[in-house]
Amino acid sequence: MQRIAVDMDGVIADITEQFFLYDEKDFGKRKLLEEVMGIKELEAFPHSRKYVYRKGFFRTAPVVKDSREIVSELNKLYEVFIVSAATEFPQSLSEKQEWLNEHFPFIQWQQIVFCGLKTIIDADIMIDDHFKNLDHFTGSTLLFSQPHNLHQNEGRHKRVHSWKEIASHLL
Amino acid sequence: MQRIAVDMDGVIADITEQFFLYDEKDFGKRKLLEEVMGIKELEAFPHSRKYVYRKGFFRTAPVVKDSREIVSELNKLYEVFIVSAATEFPQSLSEKQEWLNEHFPFIQWQQIVFCGLKTIIDADIMIDDHFKNLDHFTGSTLLFSQPHNLHQNEGRHKRVHSWKEIASHLL
Repeated sequence: MQRIAVDMDGVIADITEQFFLYDEKDFGKRKLLEEVMGIKELEAFPHSRKYVYRKGFFRTAPVVKDSREIVSELNKLYEVFIVSAATEFPQSLSEKQEWLNEHFPFIQWQQIVFCGLKTIIDADIMIDDHFKNLDHFTGSTLLFSQPHNLHQNEGRHKRVHSWKEIASHLL
Repeated sequence: MQRIAVDMDGVIADITEQFFLYDEKDFGKRKLLEEVMGIKELEAFPHSRKYVYRKGFFRTAPVVKDSREIVSELNKLYEVFIVSAATEFPQSLSEKQEWLNEHFPFIQWQQIVFCGLKTIIDADIMIDDHFKNLDHFTGSTLLFSQPHNLHQNEGRHKRVHSWKEIASHLL
């Protein structure tokens, strides 16, 4: 059975939408998608580093469209691990696990990995929105499109724009 | 640079001593080491499953003798990752990271992995006190002696009884 490492933030947890919502809450105005397309996260959302340290930021993140249904299907055919680079934000660890328990209840604790560098991850397929994680991975890679990575050429990675597209590749 | 995956509980965090201390606190009497030698954890410490859910259990665990000094030396010669099967106890995640920050301040967040199954870990050397983690690992293995694993033959794993002994192998 092939093993898939599925990233959380920007792949199943909609952190971009959460940044939009936090910006709107703080400044009374929602940014337009066009304003952040192809722009690095910290430039697109200058307050993002502050937001991620707020209690509840990760716990209340929206779920990326179709991710729950398709990860549930993948979970029957593959050995699925949810792999999140979370130790940079220690306060996020329990929030992230609670979030997974709520939205992805079919993911068992055995299948969860909170780490820093993903170079230690051994899997066949990695789905991630960051080049820094995919570039060192020796298996197959799927780059999940997010505004912050649109300016970069996908290179050897296969770019996917939605979970429907992931399903068409893997199911 | 070779990568080492170092387990926490029973290897750098002295969970056995913590069980002794919790037993003593609860029952006013410290068990003898002979009473738990070669006996599975749950039989040696029937209340251990209760203890691990108590607030502070992991945060206040003693440090295994010599582990801090020797991991610090290994950290200069190897790519060291601390890999703990912690997602079974979600409340332990932040306690474990705080514990590492206090006792192993030279370990950066990039080097920490909290997971369930360790089959996803890609490293050259694994130091662990549990066969279930070592048996599926394809690199070199060091079995760290703990009362709960003394009744088992080390098989293909190299048994080590102390961090000094680990140093003699790896430094």
